[in-house]
Amino acid sequence: MSHPVNGGVTAPAGFRAAGVYCGIKKNRLSATGQAVLDLALVASDGPVSAAGVFTTNRAVAAPVVVSREHLARSGGRAVAVVTNSGCANACTGESGLAIAREMAAAAARAVGCPPEQVLVASTGVIGVQLDIEKVRSGVAAAAGALSVEGAANATLAIMTTDPFPKSHALSIKGPAGTITVGGMAKGSGMIEPRMATMLACLTTDARIEPAVLSGALKHVVDRTFNAITVDGECSTNDCVFALASGRSGVVVTREDDPALLEALTGVAGHLAREIVRGGEGATKLVTVRIRGAASYADAWLAARTIANSPLVKTAIHGGDPNWGRLVAAAGRSGAAFELDRASVFIGDVPLFVEGVPHDERAGQAAACLQAADITVTVDLGAGGGHEATMWTCDFSAEYVRINAEYRT
Amino acid sequence: MSHPVNGGVTAPAGFRAAGVYCGIKKNRLSATGQAVLDLALVASDGPVSAAGVFTTNRAVAAPVVVSREHLARSGGRAVAVVTNSGCANACTGESGLAIAREMAAAAARAVGCPPEQVLVASTGVIGVQLDIEKVRSGVAAAAGALSVEGAANATLAIMTTDPFPKSHALSIKGPAGTITVGGMAKGSGMIEPRMATMLACLTTDARIEPAVLSGALKHVVDRTFNAITVDGECSTNDCVFALASGRSGVVVTREDDPALLEALTGVAGHLAREIVRGGEGATKLVTVRIRGAASYADAWLAARTIANSPLVKTAIHGGDPNWGRLVAAAGRSGAAFELDRASVFIGDVPLFVEGVPHDERAGQAAACLQAADITVTVDLGAGGGHEATMWTCDFSAEYVRINAEYRT
Repeated sequence: MSHPVNGGVTAPAGFRAAGVYCGIKKNRLSATGQAVLDLALVASDGPVSAAGVFTTNRAVAAPVVVSREHLARSGGRAVAVVTNSGCANACTGESGLAIAREMAAAAARAVGCPPEQVLVASTGVIGVQLDIEKVRSGVAAAAGALSVEGAANATLAIMTTDPFPKSHALSIKGPAGTITVGGMAKGSGMIEPRMATMLACLTTDARIEPAVLSGALKHVVDRTFNAITVDGECSTNDCVFALASGRSGVVVTREDDPALLEALTGVAGHLAREIVRGGEGATKLVTVRIRGAASYADAWLAARTIANSPLVKTAIHGGDPNWGRLVAAAGRSGAAFELDRASVFIGDVPLFVEGVPHDERAGQAAACLQAADITVTVDLGAGGGHEATMWTCDFSAEYVRINAEYRT
Repeated sequence: MSHPVNGGVTAPAGFRAAGVYCGIKKNRLSATGQAVLDLALVASDGPVSAAGVFTTNRAVAAPVVVSREHLARSGGRAVAVVTNSGCANACTGESGLAIAREMAAAAARAVGCPPEQVLVASTGVIGVQLDIEKVRSGVAAAAGALSVEGAANATLAIMTTDPFPKSHALSIKGPAGTITVGGMAKGSGMIEPRMATMLACLTTDARIEPAVLSGALKHVVDRTFNAITVDGECSTNDCVFALASGRSGVVVTREDDPALLEALTGVAGHLAREIVRGGEGATKLVTVRIRGAASYADAWLAARTIANSPLVKTAIHGGDPNWGRLVAAAGRSGAAFELDRASVFIGDVPLFVEGVPHDERAGQAAACLQAADITVTVDLGAGGGHEATMWTCDFSAEYVRINAEYRT
C-alpha cells in the first residue's frame, strides 16, 4: 500500500527544483496580486534514467522535437527538465526549433551537463516566437535557486491558466525496500486563447534502467493522463517526463514491477484527475466506466466517445439523468453494442437495464448528479468481459465564454 | 442549370402531403401562439420507387428497423412516408417495435396499400413509448387532408425544436427532359432534453428504378446530410427517404446521371445547410474546406475533426482568427499533415502559409469572422490533391444552456 508524502517533484531523494519569473508572461503579478512565475527547472545531482511520452499531434511543437532527440541521443539519461509557460513555441518553424535547442543548451551550461541530457517543454500561446534572452536569464536565475523546497515554485511556474497548482507524491514499501514517486503537472486552461497543453514531470528514487522506466511510464500514462479528457482536444505540446535518481537503492528490473506501477499510477492518476477537476469551466469530475465490452479497444472507444460527448457533458452539468444520451453515444462509438442487453447506471442507480428503461428511478439518479464527483457506468451488453475507465468533466457555458473571448 | 421552384416535397408531380396535430406533443399551441403539428404524411398516387439512408448508430430506433425491413420486403417500392414528432420511439424495446409496425399498418390502411409500402420515422424524446391511439387518429386525419398544398403543414409537423421549417425544390432540364426534385427536413433542436434527430424526405418526378435511386441517394447524402455537423452527435433516429413518382416521363437509368445528381444535391445540400444554420445555439454557418490531403479519406478525417472541434467552434463564435486551433485540430485528426507545408485561410486571408505565421493579417481575418457565413480552409500540405468540404456552426453558450436545462 502506498501512502502520500510531502514534497511533490522533489519528494524522492536526488532532485532539486526552482521556479522563477523571467518576463515571458506579460505581468509579474496576477489580477489577484499573486506572484506570477514562468520558468521551472527540475534537476538531479547527476545523470539519471529518463523517459518521456509525447503528444501524438502531427503539428508537433519545437520543444517536443528537441526532447525526443535528446532522449534518443543520450540513451535515456538526463540531468534537468526546463519548462517555460506563457509561450508554447509551437508552429514557429526553423527559428522556433533553434530557440528550443538553445533553451536546452542554456540549461545544460547552468547545471553542467551535455545539452542532450536536458529535456525541454513549453506551454502557452501557439505561433509566437519565444524570447531566448528572457529564457537565458530565467535559466540562470532558476539554476541558482535550485533546492528541495523549490518544488512548490516549479509547480507554479508551469501553470498557464490552471485554477490551482497540481503536485503529488507517494511512498510505497515493496519486497526490495521503500521507493518514493513525486510529480507535478499542469492542465489546460484557456482564458487567453491559443493555450492548450498538458505537461507533467514525474520523479522517483528507484534504481531503474531507462528502457524499463520508459516501459513503465507508457503503461501508466495510458491509464492516467491518456484516460482523461476535458474537451477532446490534443495539444501540440503535451509531454510527460519521468526521471529516476536511484537514490533509494531499491533496484527495479521489470517494467511491470507492482510497487513501482502502484506508486507511479497513484501519483499520475491523482495529477490527471486534478487536471480534469481544473478543466475549463468544469464543475464536476466524472468517471466514465464501460463494462461488458467485446474487446479492450471497444471499451476504450465507448468510454472516449461518452467522455467527449457534448450532450452527455451538458446533461451532467444540468443535473439531468439523461440515460438516452449515454445510450446514443455508446451506440455511435463504433464499439459492438447490443441495445437489448445494454444497461446504464448513474451512480449506483440502474436507469436502463438490459434494454428496459426505469424512469421511475430518475429522481434518485438526479440526486447522485448533485455531487462533485460522479460515476456513470455503461454496460455495452456485447458479451465480453472487457472494461475501461476514463475521467472527464461536465460542460458549462463558462467553457464557451473562456474559449470564445477574443485574444487580448 | 437547376432553378428553384415552389412547393417543397410536393413540387414534383405525383405527391400529396399533410400535417396534423394528434396530441403526441403536449401543447396544441406554441409559446408564441402558433399552431403545433406532430404527424406528417407524404403519399404518392400509387407505388413508386423508394430508397432510404439510415443512422449508423447501433442503438437504432424502432421506426428505423421497420423502414429498413419494409424497403427490403417491398423491393424498394413505397406509397407513403408517415412521420411523427414529439416521441422518438427509441430505446423502447419489443413494444416500441410493435408500435412502429402498427403505425405503418395504420397508414397503409388509410392510403390503401400493403404495410411494407409504408416508410415510418419518428423524432423526439428517447425512451418513452409512443401512444398508438394518438398515431391512429392522426394518420386518419392526415390521410383525409392530403393535398399538394399540404407540403407546408407536413414540413411543420416533423419539427421538434427547429427554429424554422426547412423545405426546398429545384427543377433541372437535362438531355431527356425536365425533372423536379423536392424535399423537407428537420434538424436537431434540444430545448427539451433527449431530442436529437435529423429526418429528411426527398421526392422527384423522375422515372427511375429503386436500385438506381438508392445509389444516387447514397452518393448525395454523403456530400450533403453526412457532411454537416452541429455537435458531432449521431442520433438513434436519423433517416433520409427518397421517392420517385416517374410522372415527368423522364427516364433516368444511371445513378450518376448528372441532372438527377445536380437537382438532388441542390435540394439536399440546401436542406443540410439549413439544418446547420438552425443548429442549437448557432449564430454562424461555417464551411470547412480541406485541400492538399494525401487521400479522400484523410481530407474527410481532417474536415470532420475541425468541424467538431470545440476550440475551433468557440473561437469562431468569439470572432477570433485563431489559426493555431485549426492547425492543432488538423494535426490531431490522424490525417497525414506536414506542418512546414501546411496553410490556413480564414475567408480569403492566408494567416499561416507553408508553416509560417502571418499574424499581421489577423485584423483582416477577424473582419471576415463577422459575417453570418464563414469559410475556413486548411491545406494539409500532404502532397495529394484530395479535397473535402463540411458544414458546421459556431459553438455558443446558448448550446450549453439548451442542453443542460433539466427536462420538464
